Amino acid sequence: RFGVAETEDLVGVVTGLAWTEVGGDILSIESVVVPGKGNIKPTGQLGDVMKESVSAALSYVRSRSTVFGIKPTLFEKRDIHVHVPEGATPKDGPSAGIAMATSIVSVLTGIPVRRDVAMTGEITLRGRVLPIGGLKEKLLAALRAGIKTVFIPKDNEKDLAEIPDNVKKGLKILPVDHVDQVLAKALVRAPEPIDWVEPEELPAVPPAGESAAVRPH
Amino acid sequence: RFGVAETEDLVGVVTGLAWTEVGGDILSIESVVVPGKGNIKPTGQLGDVMKESVSAALSYVRSRSTVFGIKPTLFEKRDIHVHVPEGATPKDGPSAGIAMATSIVSVLTGIPVRRDVAMTGEITLRGRVLPIGGLKEKLLAALRAGIKTVFIPKDNEKDLAEIPDNVKKGLKILPVDHVDQVLAKALVRAPEPIDWVEPEELPAVPPAGESAAVRPH
Amino acid sequence: RFGVAETEDLVGVVTGLAWTEVGGDILSIESVVVPGKGNIKPTGQLGDVMKESVSAALSYVRSRSTVFGIKPTLFEKRDIHVHVPEGATPKDGPSAGIAMATSIVSVLTGIPVRRDVAMTGEITLRGRVLPIGGLKEKLLAALRAGIKTVFIPKDNEKDLAEIPDNVKKGLKILPVDHVDQVLAKALVRAPEPIDWVEPEELPAVPPAGESAAVRPH
Amino acid sequence: RFGVAETEDLVGVVTGLAWTEVGGDILSIESVVVPGKGNIKPTGQLGDVMKESVSAALSYVRSRSTVFGIKPTLFEKRDIHVHVPEGATPKDGPSAGIAMATSIVSVLTGIPVRRDVAMTGEITLRGRVLPIGGLKEKLLAALRAGIKTVFIPKDNEKDLAEIPDNVKKGLKILPVDHVDQVLAKALVRAPEPIDWVEPEELPAVPPAGESAAVRPH
Amino acid sequence: RFGVAETEDLVGVVTGLAWTEVGGDILSIESVVVPGKGNIKPTGQLGDVMKESVSAALSYVRSRSTVFGIKPTLFEKRDIHVHVPEGATPKDGPSAGIAMATSIVSVLTGIPVRRDVAMTGEITLRGRVLPIGGLKEKLLAALRAGIKTVFIPKDNEKDLAEIPDNVKKGLKILPVDHVDQVLAKALVRAPEPIDWVEPEELPAVPPAGESAAVRPH
Amino acid sequence: RFGVAETEDLVGVVTGLAWTEVGGDILSIESVVVPGKGNIKPTGQLGDVMKESVSAALSYVRSRSTVFGIKPTLFEKRDIHVHVPEGATPKDGPSAGIAMATSIVSVLTGIPVRRDVAMTGEITLRGRVLPIGGLKEKLLAALRAGIKTVFIPKDNEKDLAEIPDNVKKGLKILPVDHVDQVLAKALVRAPEPIDWVEPEELPAVPPAGESAAVRPH
Ligand SMILES: [Ca+2]
Ligand SMILES: [Ca+2]
Ligand SMILES: [Ca+2]
Ligand SMILES: [Ca+2]
Ligand SMILES: [Ca+2]
Ligand SMILES: [Ca+2]
Ligand SMILES: [Ca+2]
Ligand SMILES: [Ca+2]
Ligand SMILES: [Ca+2]
Ligand SMILES: [Ca+2]
Ligand SMILES: [Ca+2]
Ligand SMILES: [Ca+2]
Repeated sequence: RFGVAETEDLVGVVTGLAWTEVGGDILSIESVVVPGKGNIKPTGQLGDVMKESVSAALSYVRSRSTVFGIKPTLFEKRDIHVHVPEGATPKDGPSAGIAMATSIVSVLTGIPVRRDVAMTGEITLRGRVLPIGGLKEKLLAALRAGIKTVFIPKDNEKDLAEIPDNVKKGLKILPVDHVDQVLAKALVRAPEPIDWVEPEELPAVPPAGESAAVRPH
Repeated sequence: RFGVAETEDLVGVVTGLAWTEVGGDILSIESVVVPGKGNIKPTGQLGDVMKESVSAALSYVRSRSTVFGIKPTLFEKRDIHVHVPEGATPKDGPSAGIAMATSIVSVLTGIPVRRDVAMTGEITLRGRVLPIGGLKEKLLAALRAGIKTVFIPKDNEKDLAEIPDNVKKGLKILPVDHVDQVLAKALVRAPEPIDWVEPEELPAVPPAGESAAVRPH
Repeated sequence: RFGVAETEDLVGVVTGLAWTEVGGDILSIESVVVPGKGNIKPTGQLGDVMKESVSAALSYVRSRSTVFGIKPTLFEKRDIHVHVPEGATPKDGPSAGIAMATSIVSVLTGIPVRRDVAMTGEITLRGRVLPIGGLKEKLLAALRAGIKTVFIPKDNEKDLAEIPDNVKKGLKILPVDHVDQVLAKALVRAPEPIDWVEPEELPAVPPAGESAAVRPH
Repeated sequence: RFGVAETEDLVGVVTGLAWTEVGGDILSIESVVVPGKGNIKPTGQLGDVMKESVSAALSYVRSRSTVFGIKPTLFEKRDIHVHVPEGATPKDGPSAGIAMATSIVSVLTGIPVRRDVAMTGEITLRGRVLPIGGLKEKLLAALRAGIKTVFIPKDNEKDLAEIPDNVKKGLKILPVDHVDQVLAKALVRAPEPIDWVEPEELPAVPPAGESAAVRPH
Repeated sequence: RFGVAETEDLVGVVTGLAWTEVGGDILSIESVVVPGKGNIKPTGQLGDVMKESVSAALSYVRSRSTVFGIKPTLFEKRDIHVHVPEGATPKDGPSAGIAMATSIVSVLTGIPVRRDVAMTGEITLRGRVLPIGGLKEKLLAALRAGIKTVFIPKDNEKDLAEIPDNVKKGLKILPVDHVDQVLAKALVRAPEPIDWVEPEELPAVPPAGESAAVRPH
Repeated sequence: RFGVAETEDLVGVVTGLAWTEVGGDILSIESVVVPGKGNIKPTGQLGDVMKESVSAALSYVRSRSTVFGIKPTLFEKRDIHVHVPEGATPKDGPSAGIAMATSIVSVLTGIPVRRDVAMTGEITLRGRVLPIGGLKEKLLAALRAGIKTVFIPKDNEKDLAEIPDNVKKGLKILPVDHVDQVLAKALVRAPEPIDWVEPEELPAVPPAGESAAVRPH
């Protein structure tokens, strides 16, 4: 049985795209915050690579949190639980990276994710979007599930040649090379930067080499 | 030997339904709270998937605790031990998720669970109820054990066609798509929301995208 | 070589019953308390199932500590070490559960265990006593060791039919369905409840659904 | 190459007896204390059973520390490192238990161990001495190494029948059933109890069921 | 598909060189800092050897932090996440050591790394640069990727004889025997030492035996 | 390729001797200190036995720190990282023990190690030096590397008979039975004891049974 798109814009819930032996499917990614100490708990029978991609997504968001309107001190008292149902199905691979980042930003800002959007792409610590495999199967699954808009890695743009025309007509396909392009459009409203003055005793540590605003595509 | 329904309404004790090689059986799920730091301890030879489902159930309850009348600060000084006897029998799978959540809410609120109720369904971080396998065997086991009411996932409703009539007559079968529908009916009284003002230094973090009341079916 | 009953009533020392490939034997279970933080350390080459049963026994005792006259704050500064000699022999299974609970209550209250008593039964978090295997071999071992009284699970009462008459004559066999029935008789005196007012900031958390007194059989 | 007895009475250094495929040997057991938090670090390629026996020895000493003149608060700021050279040789089994306890008491009290003493015996949490294997090979090794006195478990006394006469003449063999009998004689002077008043907020927890003095044989 | 050089000078992003079964490739190494306690988190399916080399790089930088203008107290409140995309590809070996150190110094000082620079070499705790394998394949990959300058271990200088002339013409190859020579040139500006007076209660601990300035080649 | 002796007297850097399938080699052992809590981090693909020998070396130094002029409180705020390059080569065995201890004392005191000295020998918690294997290959490697002085275990003195004369002429070979004999000569100056008064609340704990001064040979 295949998944279907959400019927509401939800906080912390993002639709990823999976590529399995039997074709593509959509993948629901959920985050909640609970009191804690800045830790992240990934569940849903995730393999090592997928857990590391949750970790990279979190570090990207954390190292640039003020750009997304998130107070750095929030992490001192909150943990994040990221879960990928269906809990008995093993999942692995890095291609849910940008979906993980979107889920985390959504749950930390309270801004819902658009329900008709899906996405696939590895994330780096700088927010770069790296190419993925199985594009065709993933896009077919998105179409079947009722998704309207799909973010794909810019480096996969060349693979669009092999995608059937009906899929390309039925979906708005947006190639991106940075996760901030996703965040600006996949959330129901773009996150807004806040000013933040680091406490005196520590120098402000600059985030990894990107400009300091959410970048529209 | 097969299990039988409880003879009293007990706090923290919920009847789940298991599907094994030799048919279905009921599964007693027990929780107690002890002084601690918000950790959860799952025992009873539980596999990885079942442990993760305990974890998802806890995060769901924790992220919405005030809706169930549970002060968020309670978790700072309490651990929860969830145990599934019989301790020598390995158990796995996500289908006890909603039973875990019900056990946790019961033990944290002190509201007993109705003794003649059983339930099966995977839980997500948002409280969604996902479909399970072995519905027929599970319902047979519930009937045999003296259970009167069984919550099943709405997505399993279609499987009721294959269930023998005597089972459908002997049991009140309630399909649900959200765990709050279970909580409203499986406890001897519905939990009541409390007002909660988050301490000043931290912004209130919104729970995962669901409305803020226990939802009747 | 087979074990023999203790010659003194000792604090923290309980006689369990084991069932091995070569027949039954008695099993000495020892606990001591040392300064700590409420942790439990199980040793003696115990398997996963037996370690979990130590853990269940502790949570049962902890969640009802005032009923046994144990101040909840005691756990904040004490660890418990539970050891099962002979240290080179692997041991496993849940059937020492009620013996573990008895050892823990004894060492925390300072009330010695009667030296001529043995017991077998799985414990649940609510203190329920679940049935065990190898009843015949265990009772034979108890008799041979000089034990006078044996607690067995009520659900094993039906197995007494196959027990030789000389064993049934030589032993006082007490079927129980709750560990509190064991505690009331296996200790040299029954533990006495204390009043306890939970500090203001936290609501008292009710223990798992049993009445609040040590229940005689 | 076989070990030889120490040439000095040393603090924390005890001679144990090992039984290997190629016969017996003596085993040097060393302890030092360093600043810490009451933890114990066992090294020397020790197997699980031997590590647990270090742990049992420590808990015995800790639960009765005042009897040996050791302030309970000492453990709050000290760790103990127990090492068994030769570091490349795997070692296992519970029979060094009483030697571990002797080493720990020696290093915590500063009382040296008699250099011409060796010992073998499993220890329980109550200080009981349980029987061991390989008595003949162990005694031969002790004699060859220049040891004068060997403590053995009382339950091994019956095995002395098979020991050659020259070994029995060359060694003073002392059967013991409690480790306190060892401590009273293996150290250059017996440890002396101290008075200790537990801080007000916690009740004194009684040690595991033995009388409160170092017991001479 | 092969990697290409960066198009900007980025903070924390360093180009390493990998040697695989199918030839050489460039390897992007990324670091970000987040609030924490001086821990380092290495991700990207890194093997044991590569993780240890991250650890050695950090200890080198940490033990000499003032030489690089980094306040020692910074580590008390910051963690460093080092990630090597592409996340699904296992990576191992010590040859990214000097690249790890460069990434860490860059992210802690905020000084960007020159985009047209690559490097390969094992690092020791003193900052020594040890020789690596696969020099030819690595240099070919660097050239193909558009890199202009490559740091190699001085001990690999002898291997330059086998490198094709066009590679040696297309690349500025800089043999180094200490990582400080790399840091002085690979960053867009050399880090500047700061004065640091250790708090009174602790003596200043001298760093591992090297002179106290960033050493130009 | 074989290692060569250092060209400078360095702090924390000691030359050990390794015995491999293809003959002997020298082994560089490096330590640095960083802020921390008295932990030690061993890296360089070290096996269990070698890691335990790092641990024994540290406990020896720590339990006698004032004899070496090291304030005990230093360990409360410092960690030690011990690394053995070359990071991709697995290493194991206890024979680098005295080199580990020398590296640790050097880095904690700031006293450099003589560059033309090498050493081999297992260390015990009391500082005893136990015999090692492969003496001939190790001495050949030391000679080839340009080493002038080699410390060997006294118990290996008998093996010198099989060492070629040119090796014995080319090297100053110093048999030792205690690591303090090494420390007195391998460092560029002998460490000097300090007076230390333990804070009032804790009794001074005596170190493991050796005299309280660095012992010259
Ligand atoms: Ca699906
Ligand atoms: Ca994996
Ligand atoms: Ca059953
Ligand atoms: Ca599993
Ligand atoms: Ca036995
Ligand atoms: Ca097991
Ligand atoms: Ca030996
Ligand atoms: Ca083992
Ligand atoms: Ca590539
Ligand atoms: Ca490895
Ligand atoms: Ca080499
Ligand atoms: Ca090993």
